[in-house]
Amino acid sequence: MRRAVVTVSGGLDSVTLAHDLAAGGAELVLLSFDYGQRHVRELACAAACAERLGAAHHVVDLRSVGGLLSGSALTDDAVDVPEGHYTDESMKATVVPNRNAILLSIATGLAVATGADTVVTAVHAGDHPIYPDCRPAFIEAFEAAARVGNEGFAADGFSVVAPYLMFSKADIVARGAALGVPFAETWSCYQGGELQCGRCGTCVERIEAFELADVVDPTTYETVPA
Amino acid sequence: MRRAVVTVSGGLDSVTLAHDLAAGGAELVLLSFDYGQRHVRELACAAACAERLGAAHHVVDLRSVGGLLSGSALTDDAVDVPEGHYTDESMKATVVPNRNAILLSIATGLAVATGADTVVTAVHAGDHPIYPDCRPAFIEAFEAAARVGNEGFAADGFSVVAPYLMFSKADIVARGAALGVPFAETWSCYQGGELQCGRCGTCVERIEAFELADVVDPTTYETVPA
Repeated sequence: MRRAVVTVSGGLDSVTLAHDLAAGGAELVLLSFDYGQRHVRELACAAACAERLGAAHHVVDLRSVGGLLSGSALTDDAVDVPEGHYTDESMKATVVPNRNAILLSIATGLAVATGADTVVTAVHAGDHPIYPDCRPAFIEAFEAAARVGNEGFAADGFSVVAPYLMFSKADIVARGAALGVPFAETWSCYQGGELQCGRCGTCVERIEAFELADVVDPTTYETVPA
Repeated sequence: MRRAVVTVSGGLDSVTLAHDLAAGGAELVLLSFDYGQRHVRELACAAACAERLGAAHHVVDLRSVGGLLSGSALTDDAVDVPEGHYTDESMKATVVPNRNAILLSIATGLAVATGADTVVTAVHAGDHPIYPDCRPAFIEAFEAAARVGNEGFAADGFSVVAPYLMFSKADIVARGAALGVPFAETWSCYQGGELQCGRCGTCVERIEAFELADVVDPTTYETVPA
């Protein structure tokens, strides 16, 4: 990995990954997306990450796509964000169909346009049960399509990698703690509040990950379930 | 094919394909993209096609993506649109990296969101030499990734098809003539003029296709090469 385009939402996983890649010496281009998500605060966290790392940062406006694929609790105000644990049934409301595929396709286009040899995504094992486009089989199939689809234009050895594919979120917290990632400057919550709510699926998962990793959680939540 | 999302640029190929699918009885959703192309007139042709066929039509605003992937003659005013025949070297200036992959990813998201069982693209044999994401190997790899990436969410038998994949443009003109497609209401030119220029690669290719198919070309061009 010489020069990499990394999709960075501003969440704990992708910000840790960006720090990890920078520590490994890769030249980074951070790529974020505004798809009309309620939790647009995460974009400020992505920008702060790029600034800390001295990396380029692009935010692509995909609100038109978000509007078209609505019906997800992440983009549609008429659908409630589910609370409680990140289980299959409740979190299906947070699926934006083919989201990761769309974002990685644009990241691939940017990599080819700028001569980057790698596209990196922070999907992790906790995403697999819910989001099919975050599973190992998808990453592999996507890479195959991206290579064929950019033959003669992509950099030599072009690849699409997911270094945390087999990490749990607790593993990522442990990794981030070792790297000194300022976790308070990452945003997980799917609600659009001033503070992270502490109740939605991703907040519950985040809180649990810090506990499992035995790392102090510096985040201020609206409410923390007992 | 019961219900299909078709990417329709408003060009001769995709408009003919939409007529073809409608004649076959499929329920259609037409999907177009504004990626900042000079030739935005093609979008009006896509809208006219949807109206003729009584089909739904969505235009997705991807200008932010187009800006990011600039350097292509199609989106960047600093790069001249090449004139003359549609050959490898000159037309490489018209490659927007990974364009077809990005558009098909969004079409796939829309298909999954709306329960459509098919995504259809009008790529044809003439696209293969220049655009790697229009070749048979890509369509096959993309379909494989789309199926894996939407497992449990996509309609049964979900597929990505390119009915004109082995057609020449002349074959498409012949097909369109048999279907009664109003070719004058399709736009091929890569320039942003009032009339199609008659000189850029796609105009030259279009003119040639009518000649080869022995179909009268109803298009008014700025200039037609002798």
